[in-house]
Amino acid sequence: MNGNGPTKLVDPLEDPVPGVGTYEDFNTIDWVREKSKDRDRHREITNKSRQSTVNLLHSVSDAFSGWLLMLLVGLLSGALAGGIDIAAHWMTAMKEGVCVVHFWYNHEHCCWASNETTFQERHHCPQWQSWAELITGTSEGAFAYIVNFLMYIFWALLFSFLAVALVRAFAPYACGSGIPEIKTILSGFIIRGYLGKWTLMIKIITLVLAVSSGLSLGKEGPLVHVACCCANILCHLFTKYRKNEAKRREVLSAAAAVGVSVAFGAPIGGVLFSLEEVSYYFPLKTLWRSFFAALVAAFTLRSINPFGNSQLVLFYVEFHAPWHLVELAPFILLGIFGGLWGARRECKTTRLGHYPVMEVLVVTALTALIAYPNIYTRMSGAELISELFNDCSRLDSSQLCGYQQPANNTDTGVGNTLPDRPAGPGLYTALWQLALALVFKMMITVITFGMKVPSGLFIPSMAVGAITGRLLGVGMEQLAYYNHDSIIFKGWCSQGADCITPGLYAMVGAAACLGGVTRMTVSLVVIMFELTGGLEYIVPLMAATMTSKWVADAFGREGIYEAHIRLNGYPFLEPKEEFEHSSLAVDVMRPRRSDPALAVLTQEGMTVGEVEALVESTHYSGFPVVVGTFVFIYNGRKRQEGVVSSSQVVFTEHTPSQAPDAPPPLRLRGIMDLSPFTVTDHTPMDITVDIFRKLGLRQCLVTHNGRLLGIITKKDILKHMAQITNRDPDSILFN
Amino acid sequence: MNGNGPTKLVDPLEDPVPGVGTYEDFNTIDWVREKSKDRDRHREITNKSRQSTVNLLHSVSDAFSGWLLMLLVGLLSGALAGGIDIAAHWMTAMKEGVCVVHFWYNHEHCCWASNETTFQERHHCPQWQSWAELITGTSEGAFAYIVNFLMYIFWALLFSFLAVALVRAFAPYACGSGIPEIKTILSGFIIRGYLGKWTLMIKIITLVLAVSSGLSLGKEGPLVHVACCCANILCHLFTKYRKNEAKRREVLSAAAAVGVSVAFGAPIGGVLFSLEEVSYYFPLKTLWRSFFAALVAAFTLRSINPFGNSQLVLFYVEFHAPWHLVELAPFILLGIFGGLWGARRECKTTRLGHYPVMEVLVVTALTALIAYPNIYTRMSGAELISELFNDCSRLDSSQLCGYQQPANNTDTGVGNTLPDRPAGPGLYTALWQLALALVFKMMITVITFGMKVPSGLFIPSMAVGAITGRLLGVGMEQLAYYNHDSIIFKGWCSQGADCITPGLYAMVGAAACLGGVTRMTVSLVVIMFELTGGLEYIVPLMAATMTSKWVADAFGREGIYEAHIRLNGYPFLEPKEEFEHSSLAVDVMRPRRSDPALAVLTQEGMTVGEVEALVESTHYSGFPVVVGTFVFIYNGRKRQEGVVSSSQVVFTEHTPSQAPDAPPPLRLRGIMDLSPFTVTDHTPMDITVDIFRKLGLRQCLVTHNGRLLGIITKKDILKHMAQITNRDPDSILFN
Repeated sequence: MNGNGPTKLVDPLEDPVPGVGTYEDFNTIDWVREKSKDRDRHREITNKSRQSTVNLLHSVSDAFSGWLLMLLVGLLSGALAGGIDIAAHWMTAMKEGVCVVHFWYNHEHCCWASNETTFQERHHCPQWQSWAELITGTSEGAFAYIVNFLMYIFWALLFSFLAVALVRAFAPYACGSGIPEIKTILSGFIIRGYLGKWTLMIKIITLVLAVSSGLSLGKEGPLVHVACCCANILCHLFTKYRKNEAKRREVLSAAAAVGVSVAFGAPIGGVLFSLEEVSYYFPLKTLWRSFFAALVAAFTLRSINPFGNSQLVLFYVEFHAPWHLVELAPFILLGIFGGLWGARRECKTTRLGHYPVMEVLVVTALTALIAYPNIYTRMSGAELISELFNDCSRLDSSQLCGYQQPANNTDTGVGNTLPDRPAGPGLYTALWQLALALVFKMMITVITFGMKVPSGLFIPSMAVGAITGRLLGVGMEQLAYYNHDSIIFKGWCSQGADCITPGLYAMVGAAACLGGVTRMTVSLVVIMFELTGGLEYIVPLMAATMTSKWVADAFGREGIYEAHIRLNGYPFLEPKEEFEHSSLAVDVMRPRRSDPALAVLTQEGMTVGEVEALVESTHYSGFPVVVGTFVFIYNGRKRQEGVVSSSQVVFTEHTPSQAPDAPPPLRLRGIMDLSPFTVTDHTPMDITVDIFRKLGLRQCLVTHNGRLLGIITKKDILKHMAQITNRDPDSILFN
Repeated sequence: MNGNGPTKLVDPLEDPVPGVGTYEDFNTIDWVREKSKDRDRHREITNKSRQSTVNLLHSVSDAFSGWLLMLLVGLLSGALAGGIDIAAHWMTAMKEGVCVVHFWYNHEHCCWASNETTFQERHHCPQWQSWAELITGTSEGAFAYIVNFLMYIFWALLFSFLAVALVRAFAPYACGSGIPEIKTILSGFIIRGYLGKWTLMIKIITLVLAVSSGLSLGKEGPLVHVACCCANILCHLFTKYRKNEAKRREVLSAAAAVGVSVAFGAPIGGVLFSLEEVSYYFPLKTLWRSFFAALVAAFTLRSINPFGNSQLVLFYVEFHAPWHLVELAPFILLGIFGGLWGARRECKTTRLGHYPVMEVLVVTALTALIAYPNIYTRMSGAELISELFNDCSRLDSSQLCGYQQPANNTDTGVGNTLPDRPAGPGLYTALWQLALALVFKMMITVITFGMKVPSGLFIPSMAVGAITGRLLGVGMEQLAYYNHDSIIFKGWCSQGADCITPGLYAMVGAAACLGGVTRMTVSLVVIMFELTGGLEYIVPLMAATMTSKWVADAFGREGIYEAHIRLNGYPFLEPKEEFEHSSLAVDVMRPRRSDPALAVLTQEGMTVGEVEALVESTHYSGFPVVVGTFVFIYNGRKRQEGVVSSSQVVFTEHTPSQAPDAPPPLRLRGIMDLSPFTVTDHTPMDITVDIFRKLGLRQCLVTHNGRLLGIITKKDILKHMAQITNRDPDSILFN
């Protein structure tokens, strides 16, 4: 490495060679370059703004375009989420019957619109007819039950078939929740079309179909994907975001927050979810914008009012009874259960996996067959959770509130809760059904996960936890009722007092299971806090989610998303894990000691033919120039007149002296990166990994005493990490 | 740069030369080295844990020590905050009178304990005697008023004198809120003693005194300092945190969250405050731990129950009326006001500033004289805000609720709110007093800020905003009452309806002013959300705080903390500001082109005498070794026998051949940093600044084609940035 390097930087706005600076599919972006490009662009605009009013306006509009984009993302995502909610409600109801007056009403709206029903009978009105009533004229008897059952299975199969067929035919990227891929994209990976308009359209349609088919899956995860698609599409309206991969990722981070915000009605929780779980680079500016977008989306959704109750949140609960310190024991138990649930490894039947359509149909049929007879599995996951979270109020006619009526009817509780009571026959039935539902849900969720339809894990996981929690809660309640004089309950749980809230146990259980699967903690607690609106229950929730995270981590440090990313071989440098091996940069770099030397270009003296031969003999797209660095060689030749294979390739500012009859040299200075990152060969790998993570590098040169030794790419690091943990280094598939 | 560099890293745990790796006062730490040191330590412990059970236990306890430390920080900070609250309440009450039965009770507790009073008269009971009653035997008449007034001024002067005298005598670091310094410390600066036990003790005592003296200052900011002191002191219990500056800063970040959590009773808001406003390096692990510690602290404080109402939050409010879109206009007006308030520059009387004790006494006397006659200025800031936030309920006897009684007494509102009513004489009086209080507060807060006592800006700023908001809110309410048929109010504000909540305006105004001063947005909204517990009011709050931030930013991009940091010349690289100039690394590095060449050591061939001469001729503490890098020269000599001035200094692994009678060489390999950071001379400064920020570097080598050209330190960057913005580059005082 000697000679004089170039002394001036080329203007990056000039975009000297087309194709340079764009990335290929399944490649990783270089964050530092992208950020630097954006700063150059911004500097340019600021400088120009002093010249004329038009340019000043351009500068102002540029500054506000980020906020405008956020507003649009919030509005569009909120509207789409509202539409999805309404459509899914309607189609879910259609499996059981139809509103004969207004066929576009779902069950609840149909009966509300009829104005003939009391609150008690809001689920029974003449306008709403089950399929048996429509077809056979009666809704009584075994025959009607069978007709309804068959129609239920028919619709379920139709919906799920349409869902899987549409996904396979038009947009394979629409399946799953999309969160692992979005996490990878946000870390700087490129998957073309993953956030495109086709994916968006098909995802929305198939999501509604999949949810309506009754499969054990949720729409919350996919809503994050939907919001990110919206953001990505809207980015095309603004040059600033269209042309810069790093800036676009800032918008996508905010969109992830928007997705959770509309899924749960929890804007703050959404922002923290994006921060804790999904995002890679989350500057403060993104925090403010995410929050703004999440708020806009939540209020758009509320204006649409898909649940018909003008509640912002998905599960609105209001508890009144305080909890007691002793109850931390069952809450921690729930946390352990959640951790175990999250730590289980998927054991999929690989045979059916090869026939995705068949797999979906079989699982749908199985789900419908088993789920139909049990009211707790027949209702949708969100409805089930809502019911389990609810406290038994005086008005509540649910089976879960089938307590024995107190002998003295005037002995009422405060607010809408009743004091602890002995379980009645209704509750016993409900408990059995819930226990069966739990076993079924646990099995079917494992089978359903990974099928080729849009599917989220949030709701099924929460349902499993909520059932467990409710069962434990009712158990505790009965224990307290029958042992209110025992030493444990004596101090705080006298007879006739309302001391155990089974709904709270359900909530804690749901949080624990979701936490175990995703390993979220703070964002999860905040989401739950937004649902209940009371700081009162933060400690139980925190105890359960932290326990759940610790237990799950003890069985394997990675959450479901990280596992998915690893299985797919995406190049993702996990920011949560510390690199703990003591290797050095020289152990990871290419070429290895036994390999042939690094392919380099020299600053002067090579001909175009030589360069092309070198480029063709390898599969790399960049080469270090000795003196200087990486060069992208794509289209340089086309631009300069008279360049032939024997032309000299020149990377310096000045042209070296040549024979007068020599062909004109090819000047490639403009596409050279003059500030490559370098580390010494003795840099410990933990520092190198830190540099890659924090700066978002794609590659880094390794030097020894100033001489170039080799290159480390992100893929090399991931391969090295796989090797250390005894995994196959070739499981890292992409650059 | 040639020759062979060393090939093996020295074990960092060995700590080869004492004094190397520790930092001097007023210096910046190197985050990468500190993190790397911790990883080495962790690796060591993990490896040892396989050897014996004792080591395994050590490894487990090491893993949990972080959580244990958080628990202790939460408990201690919560307890101290509770103590401060109780003491400040008691001493504030003492200015007006004393509880004759239990002198340690404050006014409210004294009357509660007497059991003789009704709810209406909870402020008047025989047990509580004003000073006039005690001294002259009567509480009526002008004479009694003057006696009370004089006693009030006497106590105020005594308290403030004690506060300023104690601060000056024992702990000069205890003055101010401490947040700017904590921000600087968290970014990697070292200020010895700033978080020590003396500062903690004196800060607690003087904080109580300063708050009790009636000065226009709050205790919320200083509580952050108190929590950080606790954390720093508790860090000494654990080797992991005592020995590592980076790890300790993680704990301090969490402690900042704890401080806000106990100040406002808002744990989530506290975590976001630490993330948005104070912290520099905030990994996810710190997020979880901060949240845990903030919760523990909040619940410790609640168990102490200093406000006697078992409310977790400082200002508990419950609004019922929804807001209307039209009201966004006044909310945005409040935002503009808040922004202007935040953008004002302090114009301190410099003459008094030289006599801090005199300054404090004069300001205290002035405050007491003007504040005493007006009930809204006589009460403490927190009480005032609480009163302004409150909605007028039927029971409320406050002057602010002096509305005309409705003619028809059965025409009641829902809940504890009443429909809009015309203002009565009581309210008119209150409005005048509030307007006077506003003018006074605005002036006295500006004068008070920066005095040499512990003082926070949160409460005074919020008070200014709350008064403005309440005035505007009452104005809107009256406007709506008298114009309920006009086009603006017609749709949503019919007569007899409760459509404007003046308390909400006060809250929005408080948030806007606080946001303007500190430039917080999300954390502020979340704190307010935790205070009210309703998502309902997030949009007004967000609209006001964002407007306030934009307006304040338009007048000057830096908040109060950044301004303070700049004025003190601390080396703080603001992560929020983009570096937008197009300079290159070569323009910033030392030596400049005209300067003499860089002082370097050579790898072999220098004698100890030569090295010492070089070290003494400059004021640097580190030198690049040609081949190799920085070296710290402190104590190397003492360790090796027989080393004299003519000894060779050797930085390589092998000892070069010497004459047989030569003195033994001094081997300094162990203190060399073998993996220095380098950038090329052509690296744009925006990228360099990004690297410094994200990696937390202290210095960086600049190379050209592999040859060493110069060094860039953090101070060089800050000087360069000062130069660009036309500030004095010598305003950066420290390294």
